[in-house]
Amino acid sequence: MDYQAWVAAEPGAPFQKQSMNRPSLGLEEVEVEVEHCGVCHSDLSMWQNEWGIAAYPAVLGHEVVGRVTALGAHAKALAVGQRVGIGWNSGSCMHCRPCMSGDQHLCNEAQPTIAGHFGGFAKSVRAHWAWTIPLPEGLNIADAGPLLCGGITVFNPIAKFATPMSRVGVIGIGGLGHMAVKFASAYGCDVTAFTSRESKFDEARGFGAQHVVATRDSQAVHKLEKSFDLLIVTVNVPLDWDALIASLAPNGRMHVVGAVLDPIPVSVFPLIMRQASVGASPTGSPVGMADMLQFAARHDIAPQAEHFPMSKINEAFEHVAAGNARYRVVLDADF
Amino acid sequence: MDYQAWVAAEPGAPFQKQSMNRPSLGLEEVEVEVEHCGVCHSDLSMWQNEWGIAAYPAVLGHEVVGRVTALGAHAKALAVGQRVGIGWNSGSCMHCRPCMSGDQHLCNEAQPTIAGHFGGFAKSVRAHWAWTIPLPEGLNIADAGPLLCGGITVFNPIAKFATPMSRVGVIGIGGLGHMAVKFASAYGCDVTAFTSRESKFDEARGFGAQHVVATRDSQAVHKLEKSFDLLIVTVNVPLDWDALIASLAPNGRMHVVGAVLDPIPVSVFPLIMRQASVGASPTGSPVGMADMLQFAARHDIAPQAEHFPMSKINEAFEHVAAGNARYRVVLDADF
Repeated sequence: MDYQAWVAAEPGAPFQKQSMNRPSLGLEEVEVEVEHCGVCHSDLSMWQNEWGIAAYPAVLGHEVVGRVTALGAHAKALAVGQRVGIGWNSGSCMHCRPCMSGDQHLCNEAQPTIAGHFGGFAKSVRAHWAWTIPLPEGLNIADAGPLLCGGITVFNPIAKFATPMSRVGVIGIGGLGHMAVKFASAYGCDVTAFTSRESKFDEARGFGAQHVVATRDSQAVHKLEKSFDLLIVTVNVPLDWDALIASLAPNGRMHVVGAVLDPIPVSVFPLIMRQASVGASPTGSPVGMADMLQFAARHDIAPQAEHFPMSKINEAFEHVAAGNARYRVVLDADF
Repeated sequence: MDYQAWVAAEPGAPFQKQSMNRPSLGLEEVEVEVEHCGVCHSDLSMWQNEWGIAAYPAVLGHEVVGRVTALGAHAKALAVGQRVGIGWNSGSCMHCRPCMSGDQHLCNEAQPTIAGHFGGFAKSVRAHWAWTIPLPEGLNIADAGPLLCGGITVFNPIAKFATPMSRVGVIGIGGLGHMAVKFASAYGCDVTAFTSRESKFDEARGFGAQHVVATRDSQAVHKLEKSFDLLIVTVNVPLDWDALIASLAPNGRMHVVGAVLDPIPVSVFPLIMRQASVGASPTGSPVGMADMLQFAARHDIAPQAEHFPMSKINEAFEHVAAGNARYRVVLDADF
């Protein structure tokens, strides 16, 4: 079963369009013709094999929007022609305790779409039916791709740990952070955006932040002591963790979704005094993704996306790697 | 208003019985004649001024059981002669957001019973009426003292974060840990006790642990990967934090109640993959304490206590300081 894909032959190699082969469609699999696919920072990490889990030749891309073109004999709940999305995971075992509890994204056997599997920078991509998420009416389809990974990653902690009465801080106004601000604002929360770039202050307000703080302005951060019910960390650089934990309200939670590599030194006394916590999570479950997409459609939330034709994938990756994406890049399929 | 108390004149000084003076009873205060008072490890820390918040002359003791002898004119919900307990806090502002939300123990103005206030190693002690907790029928009164601080400290995370289906690990089988095992077991949980002393294995089982693990047996801890819904850390020494976080189940929580002084290095990836968290808390609220005491009475839970007459307070402190308490020391008033 040959198909066209944009392929990196080895870590960091330029993508080249070539014909790839894969076996016939699995019984529970779905084949999706790609219309759009977002570029996530984790595509860059996998491209460079920063986490040591990449395989080559690699077909990246895991923020897919497209249409179902073929269904395995046992695939459920979908129809050919239906518009769907695929995110970080393209499968899970479906029978373990997390899978059976609705936490399929915590399955030990969860199959990342771009590790040991061919992703969405291609003419088509495959996923288990359960991980092929129908897109609701009213969603901005062209820009929806980044919702499938970045969007659910920040929506998940909001849906789990915030209420509309919560005071929410979002650290980092980038691909994830700008979606977090939009979601938390639509959720009804009081939102503070933390960004290291003053040039983003006005944009952050445009996304719905009521307050904007310079992340590196220690005085301003210290003034926010005991403020936040939920603090979403979307960056992966070391921060003034003591000041951030001090900014948690009683029962507050600092929730990390950025791939922070160095351990976070968590001082226990400030946490004890606040009955607070430091948590983290990956993406979300299929039901979580469906909820997030419904919420995005209802509130007209879309990532702020820059579009490149997929044939310009190498330029797009350079653009993202240079930190110039404002705020998310989507590749439009042009095979 | 003179009364007799056991007083330390300066950090670490032997306690001497002497007459102390305090102003007339406040409008919302309650005076309690002390019958029993537990010795908590934090009494030792305050005695030595380890945390820099002690004042001298110091009257320590914050695990009080006694009878109400006098009520301020505006004290509510109590009667003279009633048996009550007083714990770590003896007051809070009663009007801030945490106080008004039932989280009085998170009040910024919470008044510790033994910092800037005279505690329970005395003929009598005072507290705000809201922090003077009626003891339920059926409670083991002589041994109940340690429930008022150590007991609520470990019951609070169980009540908040466990269900009877939870798999709970308790790190450290000492004053707090042995109560945590008893509570979690009565709560219906599957309980694993972690202790560094093999001599405590059988006793831990006697407290209700289904499983016992040597804390320093790294192989055994590693075998418990993705096991615990709630891991209660009652010790204050550095541990193999990576192995403990790895032992959390999906959605699991490591909850610290020990006064761990060095920051805990929290690796983010293992936390992300489990959608897990690291939290902490102090003692509990008045309602939380009342619930804990009812639960203890219903399940016949009492700390395993060694008794000293209060006149042997100096020997009792030496006993606790030497790590020889099995598992909690209670002083019986003998004025």
